[in-house]
Amino acid sequence: MTSKNIQSTSSLRRLPGALSILVAALALAGCAATGGAVRGTGDLGVVIERATGSVQIVENSTDTSLAQVKGLGDLSHASVVFSRDTRYAYVFGRDGGLSKVDMLTHKLVKRVIQAGNSIGGAVSTDGRILAAQNYEPGGVKLFDADTLELLADIPAVGADGKPSKVVGLADLPGQRFAYSLFEAGEIWMLDASNPRQPKVTKFHNVGKQPYDGLGSSNGRYYIAGLYGEDGLAMLDTWAKDLQVRRILPDYGKGREKQPVYKMPHLRGWAISGDYAFLPAIGHKQVLVADNRSWNQVTAVPVYGQPVFVMAEPSGRKVWVNFAFPHNDTLQVIDVPSMKVVQTLKPGKAILHMEFSPKGDEIWVSSRDENKVVVIDTQSYTTRKVLPAESPSGIFFTWRASRMGM
Amino acid sequence: MTSKNIQSTSSLRRLPGALSILVAALALAGCAATGGAVRGTGDLGVVIERATGSVQIVENSTDTSLAQVKGLGDLSHASVVFSRDTRYAYVFGRDGGLSKVDMLTHKLVKRVIQAGNSIGGAVSTDGRILAAQNYEPGGVKLFDADTLELLADIPAVGADGKPSKVVGLADLPGQRFAYSLFEAGEIWMLDASNPRQPKVTKFHNVGKQPYDGLGSSNGRYYIAGLYGEDGLAMLDTWAKDLQVRRILPDYGKGREKQPVYKMPHLRGWAISGDYAFLPAIGHKQVLVADNRSWNQVTAVPVYGQPVFVMAEPSGRKVWVNFAFPHNDTLQVIDVPSMKVVQTLKPGKAILHMEFSPKGDEIWVSSRDENKVVVIDTQSYTTRKVLPAESPSGIFFTWRASRMGM
Repeated sequence: MTSKNIQSTSSLRRLPGALSILVAALALAGCAATGGAVRGTGDLGVVIERATGSVQIVENSTDTSLAQVKGLGDLSHASVVFSRDTRYAYVFGRDGGLSKVDMLTHKLVKRVIQAGNSIGGAVSTDGRILAAQNYEPGGVKLFDADTLELLADIPAVGADGKPSKVVGLADLPGQRFAYSLFEAGEIWMLDASNPRQPKVTKFHNVGKQPYDGLGSSNGRYYIAGLYGEDGLAMLDTWAKDLQVRRILPDYGKGREKQPVYKMPHLRGWAISGDYAFLPAIGHKQVLVADNRSWNQVTAVPVYGQPVFVMAEPSGRKVWVNFAFPHNDTLQVIDVPSMKVVQTLKPGKAILHMEFSPKGDEIWVSSRDENKVVVIDTQSYTTRKVLPAESPSGIFFTWRASRMGM
Repeated sequence: MTSKNIQSTSSLRRLPGALSILVAALALAGCAATGGAVRGTGDLGVVIERATGSVQIVENSTDTSLAQVKGLGDLSHASVVFSRDTRYAYVFGRDGGLSKVDMLTHKLVKRVIQAGNSIGGAVSTDGRILAAQNYEPGGVKLFDADTLELLADIPAVGADGKPSKVVGLADLPGQRFAYSLFEAGEIWMLDASNPRQPKVTKFHNVGKQPYDGLGSSNGRYYIAGLYGEDGLAMLDTWAKDLQVRRILPDYGKGREKQPVYKMPHLRGWAISGDYAFLPAIGHKQVLVADNRSWNQVTAVPVYGQPVFVMAEPSGRKVWVNFAFPHNDTLQVIDVPSMKVVQTLKPGKAILHMEFSPKGDEIWVSSRDENKVVVIDTQSYTTRKVLPAESPSGIFFTWRASRMGM
């Protein structure tokens, strides 16, 4: 008995020590396993890996990759918006998939196939409504950002009575969205204040084949680029009598049309300070418009056909990448002088660029070299190279607090 | 021996069960206790409780208070900036205290007394350097944002050979800061690219008694308000030959000077779209300047002497609060018509306002009713009222990705 008591007592005595170690270790594991990472989300982002249907979760404080999340379907064309709290990334895939990724637990929380063919989406002013723009069937769908529940389905049947592809979807202040109908040549503005019964305002005959659009980051303008003719179509949402007018109607006039190797992209970052910086379709030029008169100020000659034309958060410089066969190159335009001041060759097939929150660095995806290159925007030196599988789009969480992104 | 063996074996058998329960429980406790909350930080912010030297940590997704953190000293005047990852809030207190608050663990991580009397600070382009502007002793100090280690101390001795109070500190792109010397009437621009050996560019005779300043959110301009004379002093950081010029030189001319009940505040949100919206010291007016010519466009008559004049992220409306005895009132100016379209009386002693990330709501502090009121910016209805002890400043994390904030 005595020996037994001693034995059992001593074996009990051993418990606390064993427990404390196990608990300490497992408590930490428990955090990661059950709760996800405890960290800020202001420096987080996602990198689209187009060939593998995966995204990398990255951070721009020390420029590292935190995790890879798979199973997002066809990301050959994809765009991303973020939740109001910047914990979740919503990925709109080419196959109509809408995926909600938790950037703290590194999990695919929810995925719905919302259309047959989609090219992107936007998020409402309050961050609570997602809008997807679809090719097939053409139209816009609204979803609850928490549950991905479908709230409304707005087909895109133009005045011609036929369904159109929807392009250029952008958020506007006051729970509104604007987008363009490619075949019908129309711009629609959607008020989602009541997301189950949105109100649509339609603008007809805005121009031939609007191919993309942007909502200005100042919340005032919606501009659609035209593929079927020169110029762009602009809606001033502050005007008393809303109407769409043509801007830059003459660019490229009288010049031979060039084959277009890749459609350019428009977004809110095109408008900076006093100017709008826009890719000239089929021409090796960046068009610069005065953002009051909307007259053309100049056209900056560049190395190739521009795809993305992005102003730094400082507004001081504009970064440009190009269509094949010039897609191994980036150029930087100095805004005061409107001249190219830097040419970089960071890798093959540069598909996208993204600035850090206040623009001290720019992240660049090189699809054909399977890498993301982080470049210092002041010195143009490379800060970091991260491996990635055929990377395309890069999106940081600062977009959640910007309009037109 | 046998019984002993059984006993010891069975006592060992009981361990896993006991462990698993303990571990499960303690693992969760461990997360909260050691790791803090697992949540996004894009919707977080802090409310200054000026009388108690505390801050509330709040979130604007569901408009709730998450915690109160005490021990921040004299917050009778305080301002806040955020870390690059938006996990940490840096609180600059009146007593020269600089406090680092972890918004996820709800803890005061570090606190240093960096001066005898301070009125605020700013954070660098990359979020890694904090700058504090001090009255006593007058000057600017730079700190490492992680450790709060002092990196540089730049006294503010003007051309007059005397130390000045530093006011109007603002971040500019490229790791720069600009600020004003009250007594000397100078503007200094500081390049902190090498934070231990910052370079200072000085501008003399910019005007009498600059009392506050702003860095424009487009990253181009620094503007100092003048207390000793009419007009404001402006530095265009894009100009080839940097110099400070006077803007709005004539406002209030030929009119009787009024007693100033509270100094107005300037910040990056004053410049929106084509205009800059500025409080007219001593007059019941909001001055509107064209942000290209910097000529005065109009002066909007308002209810009292403006203190904060804040443009909505949409740029469509401007919200104004007032000095005593009109500080129970808010007015909203419609930008296209430049007219007051709304007057609200949300509480006594309205000291500050802050917009949600894309401006769907505005948070308003009512010091004398010990509450924070959350107002829908579209309908002007009250969404929520939160109790707070003598609240003053309200700051949300979206500021981390904006210049001039």
